[in-house]
Amino acid sequence: MAVNLSTPNPADLRPVTGVRLGVAEAGIRKANRRDLTLIELAPGSRVAGVFTRNRFCAAPVQVCREHLAEGDIRALVINTGVANAGTGEQGVVDALQTCAAVGRLLGVGAQQVLPFSTGVILEPLPVERLIAALPAAQANLRGDGWFDAAHAIMTTDTVAKAVSRTVEVGGKTVTITGIGKGAGMIKPNMATMLGFVACDAALSQDLLNALVREAADLSFNSITVDGDTSTNDSFILIATGKAGHAEIAEPVGADWAALREAVIDVAVRLAQAIVRDGEGATKFMSIVVQGGTDREECRKVAYAVAHSPLVKTAFFASDPNLGRILAAIGYAGIDDLDVSRLKVWLGNPDESVLVAEHGGRAASYREEAGARIMAQSELTVRIDLARGQAAATVWTCDFSYDYVKINADYRS
Amino acid sequence: MAVNLSTPNPADLRPVTGVRLGVAEAGIRKANRRDLTLIELAPGSRVAGVFTRNRFCAAPVQVCREHLAEGDIRALVINTGVANAGTGEQGVVDALQTCAAVGRLLGVGAQQVLPFSTGVILEPLPVERLIAALPAAQANLRGDGWFDAAHAIMTTDTVAKAVSRTVEVGGKTVTITGIGKGAGMIKPNMATMLGFVACDAALSQDLLNALVREAADLSFNSITVDGDTSTNDSFILIATGKAGHAEIAEPVGADWAALREAVIDVAVRLAQAIVRDGEGATKFMSIVVQGGTDREECRKVAYAVAHSPLVKTAFFASDPNLGRILAAIGYAGIDDLDVSRLKVWLGNPDESVLVAEHGGRAASYREEAGARIMAQSELTVRIDLARGQAAATVWTCDFSYDYVKINADYRS
Repeated sequence: MAVNLSTPNPADLRPVTGVRLGVAEAGIRKANRRDLTLIELAPGSRVAGVFTRNRFCAAPVQVCREHLAEGDIRALVINTGVANAGTGEQGVVDALQTCAAVGRLLGVGAQQVLPFSTGVILEPLPVERLIAALPAAQANLRGDGWFDAAHAIMTTDTVAKAVSRTVEVGGKTVTITGIGKGAGMIKPNMATMLGFVACDAALSQDLLNALVREAADLSFNSITVDGDTSTNDSFILIATGKAGHAEIAEPVGADWAALREAVIDVAVRLAQAIVRDGEGATKFMSIVVQGGTDREECRKVAYAVAHSPLVKTAFFASDPNLGRILAAIGYAGIDDLDVSRLKVWLGNPDESVLVAEHGGRAASYREEAGARIMAQSELTVRIDLARGQAAATVWTCDFSYDYVKINADYRS
Repeated sequence: MAVNLSTPNPADLRPVTGVRLGVAEAGIRKANRRDLTLIELAPGSRVAGVFTRNRFCAAPVQVCREHLAEGDIRALVINTGVANAGTGEQGVVDALQTCAAVGRLLGVGAQQVLPFSTGVILEPLPVERLIAALPAAQANLRGDGWFDAAHAIMTTDTVAKAVSRTVEVGGKTVTITGIGKGAGMIKPNMATMLGFVACDAALSQDLLNALVREAADLSFNSITVDGDTSTNDSFILIATGKAGHAEIAEPVGADWAALREAVIDVAVRLAQAIVRDGEGATKFMSIVVQGGTDREECRKVAYAVAHSPLVKTAFFASDPNLGRILAAIGYAGIDDLDVSRLKVWLGNPDESVLVAEHGGRAASYREEAGARIMAQSELTVRIDLARGQAAATVWTCDFSYDYVKINADYRS
């Protein structure tokens, strides 16, 4: 029951020169499901990543950070079912063993492989079953494997998430394709969220490193489902350099601007897809905060509103209970906030209504207008703090019976 | 369906000399329910309070702060149905008008009255209906009115919350009686929570001011249901001085120690009752964090665990999904936390089991033991951060279907 999100058309997912993907059934946790994905990168590809800030970061995240620091990455291996998190030293051994097995299979070093896991925490990774299924994943490596890979990395996701775009760079067509998975434990600093975006552009390592951070900040780090930051969150940006244009080494010029915009767009669409498919989601909400003194305080207010279970249940009920929004703004932690100056609008794609000003409900506000807006599945809460020029947007979903059901049943 | 909480026996609620309480049906929001409470204090009573830190604090909270600063409080007036929050200047006018009406009725000044409201935010207070019902509340002012008052201040509470204790002070029996209401929007810095505790002890104003803060910190500011801090939270401590012992003016000696302990105990029991009656609660959870470098970081970790919807839904499901607890500890914001040193135990009144150490699941842990503990309705999560001597405890409840139902339906 994802909100305005449907399975992508396989024909819309364009191969990225230099990237091949294969999936297999490893039986990591359940039989008869594709739970293993192998991504092979052509020589010369550059890779950058952003990872969870959770102190209990999973073993594969620790290994990814080390391998990325050495550079020259040639493969990614992703399993679902078990997160290999909270698994101590053995978890690291298991992740390294997985990398070594992939390396042997593809004829590259273990340190050229990035491992990713998502699923239940505290369970040991069944590394033998994983390794046993690697040849099957290798056997079906294909340039058009994105659609299958998008499915194989799903956990509680109900819809596969994948986006493609092309953009002209230096007279050549650059293709950008990405896949992602949610669907709970989604919060800034990367949810239980995996995102893999590849392009065939040629980009210096420094620019790629900067771009992956900027794109993460504007996409995966601007969403929340339930406020939980997971142990395994990873966002990887790959540039194979096979599109044939001259390498971009400086963040200037029209080529860079076009590529940057397109990569961020793909990341934002994947991040929004994660929210649209948030556990139990029935509404997609954009929380837009403007007029702040800096972006950080705008994000604080946006997240206070986006995280409030009371706001989220009111949206689920299509109840314009604006008081809950004001209360969340009030406890966002801005000590010198003047609530008599701020304004709040409630909107959907068709309509926008001023609901609060002068410290209370706007005189012009009518509950019918609020109810009309709340009845739709795409909503915007816009808040003007009236104290500066900064702004920030956070995307979230509502909180329904099904969220509880999914998370109470997840392990059973 | 409150967790191990039942309606107090009226006979157990002892009158406090110098305090009379009366209730009435004002029809603030719904007809035929007692929604108005009047509390009259004898001359010479001392009053201290702690209030919400929400920037959108309600009009009555603003008025309370001003009136308390002037001192010599003689009455409290409490309405449910409408919170008089987010109501701008008119809200303050309405609260002051209410105080003036109470003052006229009781022959005291308007500034000697403290107003409290709880209910829907952003709706104007129907002040005429409130004032019209005041004589009825006055007519039934009684020393043994605590039981009725505990009921009249309820909103989504399912069980009235009231506690009495006596303690010997200076050879006299001091009585402490308190009432409180929850039940959602409960979080540190005072939830949509009202707490009124009165004793007939004689206590200097300075000591009373210190005691109300300490008691709030250890009780109402150590609980959470859903992480939302409301606009109206208030905790009031009254000392009428009618018990007949010599005034305590210094925080020393056995009398002070006994009184302090008893007042804190009453506040803690009221606060725990709020959690036990948390919206949709089926389990009562104590999150005990020890071994921190200071109390603040212990509270951070405890609240991260207590607020996590994933932890709370797992507890609802009686699922020992310990990974979610570790993940919450990991994102609590302690940047230099060494997860390989910390330990986590899961316990109930009968049993305590080490579940995590060395950065992962304890080798001795068996899922059956976890499941056995989770099956009970009173649970303790104990976390040793192994980096210092500080400790803190937070009480919370699980997150069930009914939480969503109650909060999605609240206004309808």
